[in-house]
Amino acid sequence: MGNDRSFIKRAIEIAGNGINEGGGPFGALITIDDKIIAEASNSVVLSRDPTAHAEIIAIRNASKILRTHDLSDCVIYTSCEPCPMCLGAIYWSGIKKVVYASDRFDAAAAGFSDKLIYDEMVRNPDERKITFLHIPDAGGKKVFKQWIDYENRISY
Amino acid sequence: MGNDRSFIKRAIEIAGNGINEGGGPFGALITIDDKIIAEASNSVVLSRDPTAHAEIIAIRNASKILRTHDLSDCVIYTSCEPCPMCLGAIYWSGIKKVVYASDRFDAAAAGFSDKLIYDEMVRNPDERKITFLHIPDAGGKKVFKQWIDYENRISY
Repeated sequence: MGNDRSFIKRAIEIAGNGINEGGGPFGALITIDDKIIAEASNSVVLSRDPTAHAEIIAIRNASKILRTHDLSDCVIYTSCEPCPMCLGAIYWSGIKKVVYASDRFDAAAAGFSDKLIYDEMVRNPDERKITFLHIPDAGGKKVFKQWIDYENRISY
Repeated sequence: MGNDRSFIKRAIEIAGNGINEGGGPFGALITIDDKIIAEASNSVVLSRDPTAHAEIIAIRNASKILRTHDLSDCVIYTSCEPCPMCLGAIYWSGIKKVVYASDRFDAAAAGFSDKLIYDEMVRNPDERKITFLHIPDAGGKKVFKQWIDYENRISY
């Protein structure tokens, strides 16, 4: 917990610095063996990229440094509970531990949609605010068959 | 529906081509005014990036082309129902319509974790397979206050 508290304070510091640089109020860092390998702040507006959340950038940078998409030996520290996009990225990366300071309710109070998106996730696609059109007979399943039959497949 | 069917078939074709190039079996494209502006296939293994799903790459490329994080005039076509990471990215991008062919159950049958991650989303952080440690007294809320007080704030 000593290191956890020190790293989460650093993630919060990154978030604060990010605001001064024109970014959103979020910061994250990734450690391996209690050493920081990547730090990032939110740069959605600065980089004109809706996916440029602190956690996503930190995960992409850590993957570059470790030369693998598998971050299962890493811990992520983030100034705020990850939104569904970032939480999904954390699962795909294999990260096993998430330490966070603020939560989705704090983010909502500051005007961010994290909680709204969490609420949308659990709805059936046809009950969401966004229009979802499912075309199941367009041949989508054939690519999964092609994948399963593919000899050089690398599962991930 | 005529254009929707034509674009979804193209997304499936991109997915199939992606397999042959060493990627995962997923493809996506983004249109504006019924014109394709970005196409992408999954390249998690190829680019060693756990966030490199077809939809994420397509969103990042469309944002670059339109020079904005706001894709609210766009439609996304994807060979498979977006996973939680990609669905989150779609909400953040402002995209209002999603057309998809296969769904999370088809993806699960082909060995992908989409459904597992959807199931994890709805759990409280302390009930998930990943360890979540909340440190609410580390000072996280102060960056939201700093954000709200920041004169040059650009909300997104």
